[in-house]
Amino acid sequence: METKNMMEFKEEELMACCGSRIFAEEMEKACPFPSLEEAIVAARDIWFNKVNVNGWLQAFSVHPQIGHSPPSSSLSTFAQWSKGEQSTALSTATSSSLQELSEWNARYEEKFGFVFLICASGRSTEEILAELKIRYPNRPIVEFEIAAGEQMKITELRLAKLFSTKTKASSTGDQ
Amino acid sequence: METKNMMEFKEEELMACCGSRIFAEEMEKACPFPSLEEAIVAARDIWFNKVNVNGWLQAFSVHPQIGHSPPSSSLSTFAQWSKGEQSTALSTATSSSLQELSEWNARYEEKFGFVFLICASGRSTEEILAELKIRYPNRPIVEFEIAAGEQMKITELRLAKLFSTKTKASSTGDQ
Repeated sequence: METKNMMEFKEEELMACCGSRIFAEEMEKACPFPSLEEAIVAARDIWFNKVNVNGWLQAFSVHPQIGHSPPSSSLSTFAQWSKGEQSTALSTATSSSLQELSEWNARYEEKFGFVFLICASGRSTEEILAELKIRYPNRPIVEFEIAAGEQMKITELRLAKLFSTKTKASSTGDQ
Repeated sequence: METKNMMEFKEEELMACCGSRIFAEEMEKACPFPSLEEAIVAARDIWFNKVNVNGWLQAFSVHPQIGHSPPSSSLSTFAQWSKGEQSTALSTATSSSLQELSEWNARYEEKFGFVFLICASGRSTEEILAELKIRYPNRPIVEFEIAAGEQMKITELRLAKLFSTKTKASSTGDQ
């Protein structure tokens, strides 16, 4: 058995992928993973079947408002990844589109009680704003499930980054 | 227009029907109602379309565990109604069935993060326990919606009581 390919994660690394404590604890227990694909299968099972609605809200609560880059003083992995995922949005933003996004974010949060969540990777500010306006009329429970689906997409991208970072570190260590 | 038949409710009376502050505020704004049926239509719209997931959790949080009668020192309308709705369950309970219900309640709350909610009116302890065991394997988001549906049934029964109480008071006043 090729044990060197088995991937272990620490709870704090997993918290940078998804801010639910239960998610991170259950994922750590489910380690090690032979591949990214198996880690994602485990993550989906935990997120959708084991993390309850309080855990979902906890994970949502650690995200910055979309279009609001975390402060540069914030050096956490979570903040860095969040900034990276929003790089297309931030590079395509004008001050008026950012202003409009900020206003719609506030309306959204007022209605739903949590921040507008979208897997922003590769999306422009205009696309994100259009999606926010489409989702805004949804019933709260419908939007809650959509947001959980977006959180899962973000988690998958971040697990891939974690895998890639650790694989590189490991192969460098082998040389 | 028969204004004497229009029913007005105060926010605190509505909080005894459903413990979500937003629900009570929105219902008070929607007053007066010409009939119980119209009050229920408004209540459903507010509960399912306007109260967000935090409001649902707030409403769930004020319920006692099923099978746990509120303390007799608790004289709130909410506590009295809760006790009345559980009268069949409490009269059919044995100490072992109450013990089992208490254990399953704890397991349920541990998994889902809120108390097991069921419109208990007319149901025996055995029926409630059977329903709890059926619902326990559900995914958290599925159970969250079922609980919201049960809360709505409870709210409808309590709105009917509120209507009936006020109608009696009003007709007595007319004599």
